[in-house]
Formats: sequence, structure tokens, C-alpha cells
Amino acid sequence: MPEITQTMLEDALAYGRAFTDQGRTAQYIPYLRHVDRDLLGVSVRTVDGRRFSAGDSKTPFTVQSIAKVVALALALRDRGEKYLFSGRVGLEPTGDPFNSIIRLETDRKPYNPFINAGAIAVVGAIKGRSGSEKFERLLRYFRRLCGSDAISLCGEAYLSERETGDKNRALAYHLKATRMLEGDVGETLDVYFRMCSLYVTAEDIAHLALVLSNRGVDPATGERLMEADHARIIRSLMLTCGLYDESGEFAVKVGYPSKSGVGGGIASALVDRMGIGVFGPALDARGNSVAGIAILEYLSKVMDVRMF
Amino acid sequence: MPEITQTMLEDALAYGRAFTDQGRTAQYIPYLRHVDRDLLGVSVRTVDGRRFSAGDSKTPFTVQSIAKVVALALALRDRGEKYLFSGRVGLEPTGDPFNSIIRLETDRKPYNPFINAGAIAVVGAIKGRSGSEKFERLLRYFRRLCGSDAISLCGEAYLSERETGDKNRALAYHLKATRMLEGDVGETLDVYFRMCSLYVTAEDIAHLALVLSNRGVDPATGERLMEADHARIIRSLMLTCGLYDESGEFAVKVGYPSKSGVGGGIASALVDRMGIGVFGPALDARGNSVAGIAILEYLSKVMDVRMF
Amino acid sequence: MPEITQTMLEDALAYGRAFTDQGRTAQYIPYLRHVDRDLLGVSVRTVDGRRFSAGDSKTPFTVQSIAKVVALALALRDRGEKYLFSGRVGLEPTGDPFNSIIRLETDRKPYNPFINAGAIAVVGAIKGRSGSEKFERLLRYFRRLCGSDAISLCGEAYLSERETGDKNRALAYHLKATRMLEGDVGETLDVYFRMCSLYVTAEDIAHLALVLSNRGVDPATGERLMEADHARIIRSLMLTCGLYDESGEFAVKVGYPSKSGVGGGIASALVDRMGIGVFGPALDARGNSVAGIAILEYLSKVMDVRMF
Amino acid sequence: MPEITQTMLEDALAYGRAFTDQGRTAQYIPYLRHVDRDLLGVSVRTVDGRRFSAGDSKTPFTVQSIAKVVALALALRDRGEKYLFSGRVGLEPTGDPFNSIIRLETDRKPYNPFINAGAIAVVGAIKGRSGSEKFERLLRYFRRLCGSDAISLCGEAYLSERETGDKNRALAYHLKATRMLEGDVGETLDVYFRMCSLYVTAEDIAHLALVLSNRGVDPATGERLMEADHARIIRSLMLTCGLYDESGEFAVKVGYPSKSGVGGGIASALVDRMGIGVFGPALDARGNSVAGIAILEYLSKVMDVRMF
Repeated sequence: MPEITQTMLEDALAYGRAFTDQGRTAQYIPYLRHVDRDLLGVSVRTVDGRRFSAGDSKTPFTVQSIAKVVALALALRDRGEKYLFSGRVGLEPTGDPFNSIIRLETDRKPYNPFINAGAIAVVGAIKGRSGSEKFERLLRYFRRLCGSDAISLCGEAYLSERETGDKNRALAYHLKATRMLEGDVGETLDVYFRMCSLYVTAEDIAHLALVLSNRGVDPATGERLMEADHARIIRSLMLTCGLYDESGEFAVKVGYPSKSGVGGGIASALVDRMGIGVFGPALDARGNSVAGIAILEYLSKVMDVRMF
Repeated sequence: MPEITQTMLEDALAYGRAFTDQGRTAQYIPYLRHVDRDLLGVSVRTVDGRRFSAGDSKTPFTVQSIAKVVALALALRDRGEKYLFSGRVGLEPTGDPFNSIIRLETDRKPYNPFINAGAIAVVGAIKGRSGSEKFERLLRYFRRLCGSDAISLCGEAYLSERETGDKNRALAYHLKATRMLEGDVGETLDVYFRMCSLYVTAEDIAHLALVLSNRGVDPATGERLMEADHARIIRSLMLTCGLYDESGEFAVKVGYPSKSGVGGGIASALVDRMGIGVFGPALDARGNSVAGIAILEYLSKVMDVRMF
Repeated sequence: MPEITQTMLEDALAYGRAFTDQGRTAQYIPYLRHVDRDLLGVSVRTVDGRRFSAGDSKTPFTVQSIAKVVALALALRDRGEKYLFSGRVGLEPTGDPFNSIIRLETDRKPYNPFINAGAIAVVGAIKGRSGSEKFERLLRYFRRLCGSDAISLCGEAYLSERETGDKNRALAYHLKATRMLEGDVGETLDVYFRMCSLYVTAEDIAHLALVLSNRGVDPATGERLMEADHARIIRSLMLTCGLYDESGEFAVKVGYPSKSGVGGGIASALVDRMGIGVFGPALDARGNSVAGIAILEYLSKVMDVRMF
Repeated sequence: MPEITQTMLEDALAYGRAFTDQGRTAQYIPYLRHVDRDLLGVSVRTVDGRRFSAGDSKTPFTVQSIAKVVALALALRDRGEKYLFSGRVGLEPTGDPFNSIIRLETDRKPYNPFINAGAIAVVGAIKGRSGSEKFERLLRYFRRLCGSDAISLCGEAYLSERETGDKNRALAYHLKATRMLEGDVGETLDVYFRMCSLYVTAEDIAHLALVLSNRGVDPATGERLMEADHARIIRSLMLTCGLYDESGEFAVKVGYPSKSGVGGGIASALVDRMGIGVFGPALDARGNSVAGIAILEYLSKVMDVRMF
């Protein structure tokens, strides 16, 4: 495996730039429609402390589904693996789009924590006496995992999410009806909408991925932020289910455990090596950053590291 | 066709009584669990003014899904056939259970106005500046169609419906997300829960069925309560979709356009002849009154009237 | 109900003619692609012996799915109601297209005898030591029900059916795998393809419908051709499932128990009154004769007979 | 990563033995019902030439779905990546059981090459003028990938497969109907049934996995048996889809790209390191070797190698 270098990253960015005009920003959330689709950034943080960035790596964007990784980590911490996976949510990939409700009816338990239904069930399992307390706990944990206190809510995105959240409301009430979700549905959804609307940068999600690849310990501080076992579970799920119904193709093309969001971010965790964060808001038909995938494909080729 | 007589009705009741212990009251709505399952009543009103009743024909029970008939009649009056059936709800039977959400995802428009999703879309189309106004209009119309001012809300049933209504909430938000439902979801659901919780008797729903069979005119008053065309549409839908996923079998066994409710009622409209109301709260596995179906099957045989 | 007259029929034909250019002949079977789409005919036979015809009422066309009615009648005769409906095939309409395989997987038993899967199961239940014997028995019965010895195989249509029959083969093997179908799959399919390829006329299927409406007795000969109960079951299924996923809408528009075929025929049975046969090969998107439906809608209005 | 040793393998076998009584042999194929469920073997071959075995590593068993890996490798060689994945078969995992037909209807292209429908489409793409020639080519390639000329057909298993193959026939005809499968359906299925009925040992499939992990080159001979890119694609698919609807859970538990068969085998390819073959015919509810998974889980823990 060739060492990662600044030049490598810049070449990857240049390669990725050719792809931005093949996608478009998410249309179903009003806030996202107006984001500049030519933005593009990439950031790498290695377990031995090196940091590289290129392009718009400090530009804030909404974290969207990448927040599901943080929610899962916190719920695992709060409730343990057994509680969560025996009754609330499964571990299996599914060929369905992210917001599908079909399988809930025949199968009850959402297939995995990264489809919307599964993530809502996960958020419902986070401890806290109220929605606000849950969100406060989640936000604090989010900042530590990203190594940044700057992470905060994008109010406009949150209002946009809430306004267009009826499909998620349908999922949540369905979960409630089948006893997959405890507590107040409105409060749980509010935490869900908020966490999706957090502002992060490519550097922030590279740090989140770094902690996951370093088996739960932040190499910058030496602090253990999650159990090694939980980091392993999350990386596995990122590999099999991290890019919606494009996960299988992405595993073939890139092969890094990754989680994408419709805000345009992708976080990739290369165990014992590095975390990578990319940001490019132009999405393909399945909701993943077109140029982001291209950058990761490029890096996967030049580093020639096969995870499997 | 032999003339209907009081004896015939009493024989039908006696025949039906043998079936009550084959079913049980609806378990998923707390209020219904505790209803006496041995209650049984039947009522007939003919277009030429004769009235017969046997058994518990004056005992109030909650109307449940039979209210969908009234909601459909009012929405047709308010909006017309074209508005309703071109974009809001279909006319096709479906083999799915009443509260299924699966087909909404692949097909968008609910299959027909008698599955829950379709009925919620229909309620959403009723005119009124607020939920209260919609419900008031619906209740007034309900009383006229049943020829009874005594019809009123069963508060306990309403609370019970509301408390266990999460699956209906999921359906409503899904409709909202796919633009099949306008206006406030909470208000629409509240009207829906209220209308299902109205207290009626077998005599009341026999009158409702009588108006439908008399092509929209109440023979008692001579007043036209709905367009003949709308009565025809509703009778057709009762025939193909009126008994949930037992509609096909019921058409074979009985052959009368009918609408059932999980409160134990069934209303049957025999065009140009009579309306029949039965009440027996013990339900079969598909949610229809066991003894009620038996009574209608008996009457269909002794009257030997083939509708088709 | 105004008496049916020759003029009425000719007016209906003239009305229907305006609709032929709204449809097109079935494209998926090569043989049907080349049928002249402007052909149009209608035939009526009443239980009291009157006969009327207009247009191309003597032009042969392939019976296609209308043969499912005859197969069902023969299987009921051979095996009885209980054998057939307890384990082989259901009685419920379904919103799925005619050749759908989806519900077989989740529900095993085909929903009703008029979707392809159900009809194949029905054909499998017909008695006979070989495919040839089954088909011979079916053909003899077919001719008696249609009151015509002229009915015979259209060889070209049969080859066309067999050549494009892979979806039906998939259904048949699925039924075999789930033990809904006994005997040799190839032989059963061959009977199925043959029966769909029989040449009939509008007059023939009017006679078939007449026998059904006369409760199983051919009024021309006084001979009982099927049990009254079986005729009733078949009429009921025609009403709820006879026009594929357009059955509900057709019940609203026309309200006659009917069975259509992609060859362009529709047979309608008005109990105790008459049988109607129409033929017009231009089909709508759901596989039913556009002009045929228009003719039946016209007749339903001018005769003002409400079946329900 | 601790070196793999003979002791390690024997400990893994001893650990796995505790699990054999939690499963049972495949019941739906007569031949498999009577296999001794206490058999258990494991074999490891490293890229640097070491070989270890424990237990019944030389006992022949039927390869079943593991043959799908070989068929895919050959089809990729014959037709290339683009031909295969653009139109014949996808790359996405699915939560459905291995023999599901549901998604074929809505999606046409089988989700991936390891569900039965996908594998049948892959077999159809293998070059050869006849079924026999296709099978001969496949068998020759099979032997080279396993480094063993002893691999041959288990006639009894083949007859058993063919006799109970109706669900696969249904899948094949459905693929044919939707033009996902060219050529003769019967011949393609015959190749499919034969390849599933080949006798292999744990050592054979360890060798197959070794070639995959050594990027397509057999380290024993230095010969390139498949393109490095094809080996990578296959490993990726093994990771996301290799254990039917247990793939996601297996990725969490074990994390090795693996392919299982209902004969009780599992082949695991650890890139640049080793191939592992396990054999234990007692299966869990989803069709995977119970003790085989336990052995792999044990090895994954003691070797502490995280692939991702």
C-alpha cells in the first residue's frame, strides 16, 4: 500500500471534479435543492496522526444519513448490542430504497439501522427523559466523535426536514403500531430531523470515520469513544448497507465501509489505517454523491489496498 | 321471491345464533374486547315501507367501517365522482387486509374507499373549514341516512380508537407524503376516529341500506339523500370490496352488496327491494361478523333472490 | 326494464364503434397483433328464447381467458366445490394484473380461478388420464355450453400461445413446487394453451353466458349442463374478478357478471334474463375490449336493469 | 495477526462441534436429508503455501450454491463484466431468501449472482454450443480452481435436484419471459442442477477460496486462473451476498468474504492471505452451516484479523 500523500488527494479531487455535472442535489428537501452542486472536498486523517485535505473540506453541509452512524453508536452504548438487534432492528442489507415501508408490513423489524425505519427505531432507543435531552446527548457525542465543537444545527435544513417529513412520520407510526418504537413518536421524529440537519464538514466526518477505523479510540486524544466491538459492528453495517441500494455496487467499486448522506457527504473507515471524508452535493439516482464515489474509487485504486 | 316475513327473520336469527361461539370480538381495539359476544340482532326495511326486526336490533354498537359508506356518500356529494376517483382513491378490490400499507408504496392511490387508506383519503375530501365542521356535517348526514337523531358518539370507543390508531396514522402520513391527502393530517384522522366510534343499531344501518337500495331516496320521507348514480357506485363497491379480503367469498355465499364493520354490524342493500342490518360482535379471522354472515346467507337462501 | 330489441342492439353497436380506435390488439401474442382492430359484434340470447345479433357476431376470434369459465365449470363438475376451493384456488379478487406471480410466493393458493395462476390450477384439476383426454373432454363440454359444434382449435393461435408462454410456464412450475398443481406440468400447460386458442363467435359466448344466467340449464334444449350452485359461484366470480384488475370499475360502470379475454370477447350473464356476447379486439391498457365495454355500458343504461 | 497453526484449527473444530446439534441437514432435497449431520471438517491454504486441515476435510459433500462462484467466474471470463452486469444480473444484496421470485416481477434483473435466479442467468451466459459442452467447460474450470481432478458428479444428488427443481424451473421460465435468459431453458437448468451436485471436499473449496484471495492466481502452480478484477468482484459479492439472507449478520460476526451451500460447505477468501474451507451439513434456518459459521467466527477472533 503506497503512502497517502497530499498530491494523491489533489489528484483524486481533480478526478472527481469531472463527475459533478452527472448528478444533481437532492430535490425532495427544499433546503438541499439550492446548494451549489459544484462544491467538492475531501479530507483524510490517519491513525498515526497525519491529516490531509483538498478542495472544500471546511465547507459546512448537512450531515443527513451519516448521522445514523452516530445514533447507532450512542444507542449501542446506551442499550447494548443484544437489546438493539434482538428486537428493534436487523443487520441485513435490503435492495429497497432508503425510505421504503413495504418490508415493515411483512417483516416487522426494520432490516438494518441505516434505512430510515431502522434509524428511527435506533433514535427511539437512545436514552433521555425527553426529546431535548436525547438530542443534547446525541449532539455532545457527535461533537466528540468528529473532534469538533463547532457542529451545530442548521435551522433552515431542520425546518425543511420537518416540513417534508411525512414519509418518515408514516414509518415512525408504523413502527409504533408494531411495537418496534417506544415513547413519543413526535419527540423521536424531532430528534431524527434535528440530527439529520447538523452542519458538518468533510474534515469532521473524516474524524468520525477515523475513530471507527481506530476501533473506537480517538487517536488525537487517546480517549475511547466507543467499544471496539461496536465500532466493528458499525463498520460491517457500513460495508453491507451504507450506501442505500447502491451498497453492493459500491463494495465492488470501492470496498471501504462507508456511510453516505443526501447532503453529499460520505464517510469511509479503513480499519487500522485512516478515516476519509468526502463532500460533493451532486447526487446520483440512488442518493449518493457522484463525485464523492469517484474520489473514493480513485483513492481505492491508487492506494491499491484491498480490504477484502 | 317469497315475501319477507317476521317468521323468516326469526328463523334466520335462530340459525345465526349457532355461529356466535365461532368468533370473537375485535381484540385490537380495547373498547371492543369487552363487548358481549352473544348479542345478535337483525332488522329489515323494505322500499314499500314494511319493517321487521328480531333479536338485539335496538342495541347500540359502534359503526366502525360501515361509516366509510356514509363518508363516501358525503364526499361524492361534496366533490363529485370525477374529483374523487381520478386522483384520490380507486375502485378496485384488493386481496390485502383492511389496514395494509404495502400497495400504497407501489401504487400510490389507495385501491378503494373501503380499505382504511382509501377511507382516510375520502374523509380528507369532505368539505369543512375545520375538523369539527367536517365531523358535524358528517354526523348530520349520518343521522338523516339512518333516519335517526339518536346517533351519537361513543366517547369510550373514540378514545380507544385514538389510542390504538398508529397504523392509521402511518397510512395517513403516507397519503400526505404522496399528495393523496390534503389538509391537516391530525384533523382528518380525528374525524375518521370519531365517525368509526358512532353508536348505531341494526335498525339504523338497515335504514342506511334502505336508502342505498332505493336509489338514494328515503322511502319514509320521499326525500332524495344522494344522487341515484352515487348510490349505484356505492352499492357496486360494497359488492366487490365491502367485506375486506372476504368480499369474494361473501359474494359467492350471499351476493348482496354489503358493508361490514369490526363492531359486528353488516349493512346490506338489495336494490329496489330492501335494506338489511345485522349485528353480532363475534368476528371471524378476517374481521366480519360470523353470525351476521350466517343470517344473511340464510336469508339469501330462503328468499331465493339472485342479485346476479 | 325495457324489452331488449334489435334496434337497441344496433344502437349499442353504433355507440361502441366510436371507441375502437382508443385501443389496440394484444401485442404480446404474435397471432393477436395482426387481427383487424375495427371488427365489432354483439349477440344476445334470452332465457325465453329470443335471439338478437348485430355487427360481426359470426366472426371467429380466439376465446382466450373466457375459456377459464368453461374450465372452472368442468373442474367443479369433476371435483366439486370443496376440493377446488379448499386447497387449489381462492375466491378473492386481487388488484394485480392477470399474469402476476407475486402473491403466489406469500400466499401460495392463487387468489381466484380467473388469474392465470388460478386457471392453470383449475385446468390441472380436470379429470383425464392424459393431456389429450383432458382437452377432448373440455372441448366437448365447451361445444355444449356454447351450443355449437363448430368450435375448434385455431392452430396458429395455439403455436403463438405456446411460443410466448414462458410466464405461464413460470406460474405452473411455481404451483407445482408449492403442491397446488398435480400431474405433468407440460401436459397441463398444453391443455391451457389449447383452450385459450379455441375459435368462438360472439353468438357462441352469448350462449355460454345464457346457460350461466339460466342457472345451468340450456333453455334451447332444456338440458342441465351444470349445477345451479356452480353457475351461481361462477357468476359471482365473474362479477368480482372477471375483468382482471378492471373488475371493480366495470362493476360500477356496467354491473353485469362478465368474463373478458384478450382476444377481444366479453361474455355477460344476467341471471334469469339473458346472456350477452360482445367481440371487439381493440383492448384497453388492462387487456379488456374497449368497444365491448362501451357496448355493455350502453345496454346497461338503456335497459336500466340494476343487478345490484 | 497471529500465525495460523494446526492447533488453532483443531481448537476451532472442537469449538464448532458444540454447534452441530443446533441445526439439521437440508430437508427439501431428498439426497441431503440423509447425510450424517455430525460430520465436520475445516481446511486452510495460505498464499505462501502452507496447508492445514482438521476433521472430515477429505469427506466429499455436494457443493450446491458454492458452485455459483465458479459459474460466475467462468461467465465473467466468457462474457466480461459489462455484458453480465449491465443486463443480466445485479450487484446488490437483498433481504429475500435464496429462491425468492417476488423481486423478479417488479425489478426484472435478478438482484445478484448468488440468489438462484441470478445464478441461473449467469449459467445461461456461459459459452457452449450445448448444455453438455457448457457443463464440460464448467467442470474443467471447477477442477482447476479447486486444484483437484477428483471432482465429479454425485448422480444421486443430481437426480434429487432435478426432481425437486420446480421452483428453479419457475425462476428460469420467468427469466426467459423477461429476456434475462437466452437459449434453451431445459439445458440451462440441467447445467445448473449438475453443477450444484458436484462432489467436493473442504480441501477443494479451501483451494478455490485461495485462488480468489490470491487475486486470481493459483499459488501452487503460479497459473492465472481468473482476472484479478474478476476475483475482486467475486470477493465483494461474497461479502455482501454470500450467505443468503444471513449475509449482513455474518459480515458482523465473521467479516470474511464467503459463499455457503446447503450441502454444508462454506468457502472464505481472505485477500492476500488464505483460503478457508469448512464443511458441516447441519444447517441453520437460513440454510447455512451452523458449525461452519461457528468455526469461522472462532478463527476470526483468534486470528484477530479485521478485513474491514
